Amino acid sequence: MNQLTNAIGRNLPESIEGYGKVRPFTGAFATVPDMQRQAPKVKRILPNEQKLVEDIETVFKRIPVTDGMTLSFHHHLRNGDGVVNMVLAVAAKLGLKNLTVALSSVFPVHAPIVEHVKSGVVAGLDTNYMSGPVAQAVSHGVFPRPVVLRTHGGRARAIECGQLKIDVAFIAAPAADDYGNINGVEGPAACGSLGYAIPDAQYANHVVAITDHLMPYPLSPISIPQTRVDYVVKVDCIGDPKGIVSGTTKITRDPVGLKIAETTAKVIKAAGLIKDGFSFQTGAGGASLAAAYYVRQMMEESGVTGSFALGGITGYMVEMLESGLFRKLIDVQGFDLDAVRSLAANPNHLEVGADFYASPFNLGAAVNKLDAVVLGATEIDTGFNINVVTGSDGVVMGGSGGHSDAAAGAKVTIVVANLLRGRLPIIMDKVLTATTPGETVDVLVTERGVAVNPRRTDLYEKLKAAGLPLKTVEELKALAEKMAGVPENVITQDKVVAVVEYRDGTVIDVVRQVGK
Amino acid sequence: MNQLTNAIGRNLPESIEGYGKVRPFTGAFATVPDMQRQAPKVKRILPNEQKLVEDIETVFKRIPVTDGMTLSFHHHLRNGDGVVNMVLAVAAKLGLKNLTVALSSVFPVHAPIVEHVKSGVVAGLDTNYMSGPVAQAVSHGVFPRPVVLRTHGGRARAIECGQLKIDVAFIAAPAADDYGNINGVEGPAACGSLGYAIPDAQYANHVVAITDHLMPYPLSPISIPQTRVDYVVKVDCIGDPKGIVSGTTKITRDPVGLKIAETTAKVIKAAGLIKDGFSFQTGAGGASLAAAYYVRQMMEESGVTGSFALGGITGYMVEMLESGLFRKLIDVQGFDLDAVRSLAANPNHLEVGADFYASPFNLGAAVNKLDAVVLGATEIDTGFNINVVTGSDGVVMGGSGGHSDAAAGAKVTIVVANLLRGRLPIIMDKVLTATTPGETVDVLVTERGVAVNPRRTDLYEKLKAAGLPLKTVEELKALAEKMAGVPENVITQDKVVAVVEYRDGTVIDVVRQVGK
Repeated sequence: MNQLTNAIGRNLPESIEGYGKVRPFTGAFATVPDMQRQAPKVKRILPNEQKLVEDIETVFKRIPVTDGMTLSFHHHLRNGDGVVNMVLAVAAKLGLKNLTVALSSVFPVHAPIVEHVKSGVVAGLDTNYMSGPVAQAVSHGVFPRPVVLRTHGGRARAIECGQLKIDVAFIAAPAADDYGNINGVEGPAACGSLGYAIPDAQYANHVVAITDHLMPYPLSPISIPQTRVDYVVKVDCIGDPKGIVSGTTKITRDPVGLKIAETTAKVIKAAGLIKDGFSFQTGAGGASLAAAYYVRQMMEESGVTGSFALGGITGYMVEMLESGLFRKLIDVQGFDLDAVRSLAANPNHLEVGADFYASPFNLGAAVNKLDAVVLGATEIDTGFNINVVTGSDGVVMGGSGGHSDAAAGAKVTIVVANLLRGRLPIIMDKVLTATTPGETVDVLVTERGVAVNPRRTDLYEKLKAAGLPLKTVEELKALAEKMAGVPENVITQDKVVAVVEYRDGTVIDVVRQVGK
Repeated sequence: MNQLTNAIGRNLPESIEGYGKVRPFTGAFATVPDMQRQAPKVKRILPNEQKLVEDIETVFKRIPVTDGMTLSFHHHLRNGDGVVNMVLAVAAKLGLKNLTVALSSVFPVHAPIVEHVKSGVVAGLDTNYMSGPVAQAVSHGVFPRPVVLRTHGGRARAIECGQLKIDVAFIAAPAADDYGNINGVEGPAACGSLGYAIPDAQYANHVVAITDHLMPYPLSPISIPQTRVDYVVKVDCIGDPKGIVSGTTKITRDPVGLKIAETTAKVIKAAGLIKDGFSFQTGAGGASLAAAYYVRQMMEESGVTGSFALGGITGYMVEMLESGLFRKLIDVQGFDLDAVRSLAANPNHLEVGADFYASPFNLGAAVNKLDAVVLGATEIDTGFNINVVTGSDGVVMGGSGGHSDAAAGAKVTIVVANLLRGRLPIIMDKVLTATTPGETVDVLVTERGVAVNPRRTDLYEKLKAAGLPLKTVEELKALAEKMAGVPENVITQDKVVAVVEYRDGTVIDVVRQVGK
């Protein structure tokens, strides 16, 4: 097969069976869109028509769902989601084949997908993140077609630009009325923001709300409007609350994690960002939250009011909103009960779609307005390219999610990591799977020092002046290797099992089969 | 010229110069859409790009605005609007010609449009309602092309379906941030809902926010999002608050109006609609508000909680929301300060776009869920067709606005009118300009009796059982003629000065030139 090399030196096939022609990554901001937006069919409904349908099977027959269609789902119910399995069971029962599942993230609870692949019901998967049995199955070559791995913003872009065409969007609806208005803040499966479902509902050819909490018309707030929803199905239960939101997310107690977090906050301050209007994104992991903790101290000390915190929202961010440290929260996904409660009640807590959050191809996503973002990594290389897709064994265990999007948008992008991960150095010459390109990563913070991307001489000078423990990324790599040796290369097969699309739709890397 | 006759017997040219081929009205629900939605160009903006531009002239040059383009505007600033005149003055200064102005409603303040037409800057007008000098000029044949008169829902449909293509939407923004998020509830020109601007922003090729109240990023609530706004211009003043909202809207004190209103409420009750979940729309005029007053008494007496009130929202509806008589308000346009205040603060007061309010071609507008709507009329004929476009002299003095939309959607559509209007009978064999088709009008309430559309035998029986003073429309017509004689036919010229499109885009009637 003919090969090509993309802008970060990855060798890629020119074309991949089951995916098509590869458009190589050419730089984080190199692709200029040249198309019209996706235009779904115009429909109508007569004033007395009803949308409530007795069960999912009836919906399948009414649409009708046929072989080869793309069915989309959102992941806001996370590992408590009951809707994907429920819908695919109907597809299997009806004998459908060759479906593509476009599910914004895949969790262990979605294990039944593997059986649907084996039986031919499902042939394709399009997602931004996956963990658990499905991710394992992908890596072991169970899927007949390579999985498409996107970023959160890239998925919104692909939908808006007609590159991910959705035949039917099944929306797990924590609350809905009988005319299809939906929100995520009420009902037993309340999950908060429905941000990832918003582009699906906007552009799918058919939209089905699946709810266990039918409310009187008109439901409000309205996250997804009646004007785009064809059918409403009431089921007993759309998900298990225990898997949907955690009671509360907690800051790490690991001293190494705390040290990295404190250094991260110092980097942000040294970069001159702790001032009125500061905007910030961090993850929900314990170490990321710890960074928020130290940032908060600095904001309080300096009497600073931030403009907004962005991304997946936790109770810690809610507390910062309620304390007046941020004027607004921009929420594409909530992680805990406090985030759900706040979104329901606080007008300064804004729900936005994945397009508003992170799409590269509109007139400005929220990530573009970020001052600082703190992100994780499973591997980083000396070109500052990040891997958050595969683990040290080459098996898929994640995905970009909003990683590449926030990295591209923020003024200062900081990756935090322990030098070792599972006794293996995290820094290498070349990451196994490039997810986020080095040109969008500014600083690496580890427990043994801080490396600044050589592209950011401005930032280097500021951090140096602030007395931060600067090292080159090569020096940090050498330190790690001194502790743990040089890791062996992962041996993979030739078969491409996943295509990693950058947020603009170009291919930044591929994942190859492991084992056998 | 060849003629055709539409489903309500109107003779229309087959084709109209400057408008094109006429698709005749074939029935209120006869048109089934068969197209894809309009797909504007996909754009992008880099993370550090700015949208704030120094003045409107610079925006014209950047886009660039060229001869023949369609510029759209919303009418939420009503007779206080400063933006339309401001923008068209720039167009004139730059020597542009042959522009089409797509302004959702035209008020006396927009008189300068007439001069722009005479000088060739503006050639076309697309609107849902007009009064004042522009309406006079239209009727006297000043425009080189016939004006297109739409309904509020029809305008949203035409934009969504690509039949009204907007090159540049200029959004008068009572509040905006520098990245283009817009709302109508803050700032000196606060007008409440921006519902009519929402489809424009969604589908225009270029969107410009013009504001006199620049807020820190991110502004919220967000009525129009940053993702669709190309440029933001700060000006000194977008409008005169005195012309935008009234201090408070008042119920009529006219005893005839009160009698009609009371009868109207009795019709609604007799129709069996005063029960939990009741939904209602009425206008902001004194007589319409009086109907709300009597409906309210009945709701209170029966201990009924309504689901929602819809449409243009007044302080009276806000009071009913706050008293728990309606669970929600669905607001496409606010009429007074109370409506603005409530929309800003009350989560049960929902802002919606014109598409959600009234478009016939989506999966269900709010009008479809209406139990009862109370509407006015300048003329009504024995086929229950309504004219709200031209006055007794044949001159344009209004337009459908949401009239035809609500009439089509509601379970019971009631038209209220004094038998005489300016000493002339309001009922005739054939209205001068058909706006809303009789098949969507159920009841006519006058001070001398109530006429039920013969199509609604079910309703006739209920109103009869309730002892309402029923008459046929012919009997009411005879009564009026006995008082005031048979009105003379208005003499018009041949030239078509306006095309009245029904909400589905078919032509329900035309307006011909008056005078000379």
